[in-house]
Amino acid sequence: MPVIEVIVKLKQGVADPEGENTRKALNLLGFDDVRRVRTMKVFSIEIESNKDSRILLKEAEEMCEKLLANPVIHDYEIRVRER
Amino acid sequence: MPVIEVIVKLKQGVADPEGENTRKALNLLGFDDVRRVRTMKVFSIEIESNKDSRILLKEAEEMCEKLLANPVIHDYEIRVRER
Repeated sequence: MPVIEVIVKLKQGVADPEGENTRKALNLLGFDDVRRVRTMKVFSIEIESNKDSRILLKEAEEMCEKLLANPVIHDYEIRVRER
Repeated sequence: MPVIEVIVKLKQGVADPEGENTRKALNLLGFDDVRRVRTMKVFSIEIESNKDSRILLKEAEEMCEKLLANPVIHDYEIRVRER
């Protein structure tokens, strides 16, 4: 059964307050050489079909446009794999 | 400068309401063959030092134990890479 992995990350230049607060907390915990933290979200999507991976890739792009990512602030990457 | 990537995911068997609601929404949008969605979080941590990757791996494990992951519900993976 194929699995689509969608990685949603903030566009370059968009503030990442969660990452920034994580950096501060790590510094406070003694990890002094942490300079920057960026956060990302991954959706692992199991598909019940035998569609070819080119079609799955196209569907995954539609999923991102319609639901998973906000084009104003997010970039996304898609990986299709069999498992 | 090395970058540590920490992937935090829910343990097998722990409910993932965000993933489940994403699956429902995708089904409602017409993506009928989506059977399951799991969500994960990635922290991309930039380190300002020349420590060797074994030491970085050990530090990253400490970061997970102290801050990034909750051992009751989360598993994590760590990758160290140069960039």
